[in-house]
Amino acid sequence: MSVTAAKGFTAAGVPAGLKSTGAPDVAVVVNTGPSRAAAAVYTSNRCKANPVLWSEEAIKGGSAVAVAINSGGANCYTGPEGFATTHQTAEVVAEALGAGAIDVQVCSTGLIGLLNDRDALLSGVRSAVAGLSADGGHAAATAIMTTDTVAKEAVAQGDGWTIGGMAKGAGMLAPALATMLVVITTDADIDSATADTALRAATAQSFDRLDSDGCQSTNDTVLLMASGASGVTPDAAAFTDALTTVCKDLAMQLLADAEGADHEIAIEVVNAATVDDALEVGRSVARSNLFKCAIFGKDPNWGRILASVGTTQAAFDPADLDVALNGVWVCRNSGPGESPDAIDLAERAVSVTIDLKSGSATGTIWTNDLTQAYVHENSAYSS
Amino acid sequence: MSVTAAKGFTAAGVPAGLKSTGAPDVAVVVNTGPSRAAAAVYTSNRCKANPVLWSEEAIKGGSAVAVAINSGGANCYTGPEGFATTHQTAEVVAEALGAGAIDVQVCSTGLIGLLNDRDALLSGVRSAVAGLSADGGHAAATAIMTTDTVAKEAVAQGDGWTIGGMAKGAGMLAPALATMLVVITTDADIDSATADTALRAATAQSFDRLDSDGCQSTNDTVLLMASGASGVTPDAAAFTDALTTVCKDLAMQLLADAEGADHEIAIEVVNAATVDDALEVGRSVARSNLFKCAIFGKDPNWGRILASVGTTQAAFDPADLDVALNGVWVCRNSGPGESPDAIDLAERAVSVTIDLKSGSATGTIWTNDLTQAYVHENSAYSS
Repeated sequence: MSVTAAKGFTAAGVPAGLKSTGAPDVAVVVNTGPSRAAAAVYTSNRCKANPVLWSEEAIKGGSAVAVAINSGGANCYTGPEGFATTHQTAEVVAEALGAGAIDVQVCSTGLIGLLNDRDALLSGVRSAVAGLSADGGHAAATAIMTTDTVAKEAVAQGDGWTIGGMAKGAGMLAPALATMLVVITTDADIDSATADTALRAATAQSFDRLDSDGCQSTNDTVLLMASGASGVTPDAAAFTDALTTVCKDLAMQLLADAEGADHEIAIEVVNAATVDDALEVGRSVARSNLFKCAIFGKDPNWGRILASVGTTQAAFDPADLDVALNGVWVCRNSGPGESPDAIDLAERAVSVTIDLKSGSATGTIWTNDLTQAYVHENSAYSS
Repeated sequence: MSVTAAKGFTAAGVPAGLKSTGAPDVAVVVNTGPSRAAAAVYTSNRCKANPVLWSEEAIKGGSAVAVAINSGGANCYTGPEGFATTHQTAEVVAEALGAGAIDVQVCSTGLIGLLNDRDALLSGVRSAVAGLSADGGHAAATAIMTTDTVAKEAVAQGDGWTIGGMAKGAGMLAPALATMLVVITTDADIDSATADTALRAATAQSFDRLDSDGCQSTNDTVLLMASGASGVTPDAAAFTDALTTVCKDLAMQLLADAEGADHEIAIEVVNAATVDDALEVGRSVARSNLFKCAIFGKDPNWGRILASVGTTQAAFDPADLDVALNGVWVCRNSGPGESPDAIDLAERAVSVTIDLKSGSATGTIWTNDLTQAYVHENSAYSS
């Protein structure tokens, strides 16, 4: 159900011929109201794709009637022709719904630098709008997949209101948003300011802490649309909690489906002076190819962890760091601790704990290992 | 000849049993004078190995009589026992040479977190000192190898003086020094301040621009020892030029021998506002696993280059960037340019040129591709 779990939304996913496989590649999600409050966060990459350039402007009014999404082409670095394709996508949806183009968000994903076949795309968008239904959530979630192996959906129930979401992404997952598109819908009756505050809080705790391969996309978008169809205005804290739950759920689904990965690794940094320190240290380890290779090889090589910690500016004493792998404190006071022999890295889930002994803040970054399959997938095919 | 090419130096390399293969693993290089001027730069990693902690203090007087180097163990995160091993290594060399321990630099390389067999190491050091000779340079260069497949040596001739050097390193090569140990000797008669200035200028143009895998080591050292044995005091600029030539030569040898790499990639950033901007942009591309996988796959995927450029703070207009691959301008004004079809990425040498159109500064970062062999080498074996 995902984006159609909440009342006031319809969706569809159709094949438009953008993917050479003939798989579904165009999705549309529509907010049927009565409210059209919306908020979004976009990639912080300065080289943004055309749909992001469009949508960033369009969201400024705090409302959205619909979002149109295509896989099979990122429409990035495609110049004025590419921007015109995005604009016309919004126009086609708006016309069908009796709205303005400015009320339509657009997202694209796929290969960079490639002009989409505009006629095929617009034809697919028309077909999707014609097929909108209140149970079209799963079809939409399927149509936005690229190298994803499964559709990613999540739902949370509040007291009389619902939040549902869908996501795509399987690589190029790095902070300040992964290569991913996320659409979240709710029938809670909230204004756009409340939606914006809640969405920024939720993404900071979820997608922003995902760093699969250190590569930041040009197309990332997380969109929240609120229909108000439940007639209930939830407590802001309860809504933010539920939204964070949905975002974390989707983030963990992205992590688990990362291209070629054998392991999901949680890097928890404890007793940091600040949360920023904790996240800086966690990210430095998440971006160490040597550490990521070691985990792939099931090698509890904690030296590579400390070597990464040492590249940061966080507060700590280099002579007094502790590190645990799967709960075994293999490094104490920056020297050998418990024997790593008992550590079994066969399971997909791996935990790293780094104790900075410099405060009381904690932060976790999630990443994947670096595998031969990742290299294969990202060298054998353009994406 | 390498470190014994210049007059006033002896060297030796011997097996001490630290490497399980029985290959040579201890090297000593001695400056027989008459001058003992020296300068060094060390890793900027805050988690430094014991030999770096020792040598950083020892170099402060601006002189060194000798350097003792072992492969087969990094002596990093090994606590007070490890520091004592480094100290005793210096003591053993100093005693044999009638010098003070403070006059002896120590370097180690190998697995982190592992205590070296002190007796074996010290015995090897004694044996190396006993075997010092004026033609021992190549033996020393061989003894410091770890996963290196070839010994790395370079020589430059000045007007009446000589510079020679050796290096080891094949992975964990990142800015502010690669995982590498470099010893450079000269018979030029220069003081330690001149040596220090020249060395910092030369490393900034060479080793600091190498970023093989984004991982920064805990043990990096570049040591320059000057014997004055030629009796010639060169012009400072000419000396710096020759030293830079030797450092670049060794840096390119490190790049060519990087673990598992199929390509050497020069990322040249032109028309930047500042050299720092150029280097920031170059490094961001050098650290993109997706870009590095594409080069391995011989895929001229310029979108992954722009996506990395967009993560930097350098001055540029995101809508007006040009990118060339092997001289073909595949991206013009941030959109598709010449056809990439003619680009042949079969050769090891690959050039990327990024035109920021924002000034007149230029900088080049050298990196390698990301291959399945790199993942294999760094997952199957601890190092």
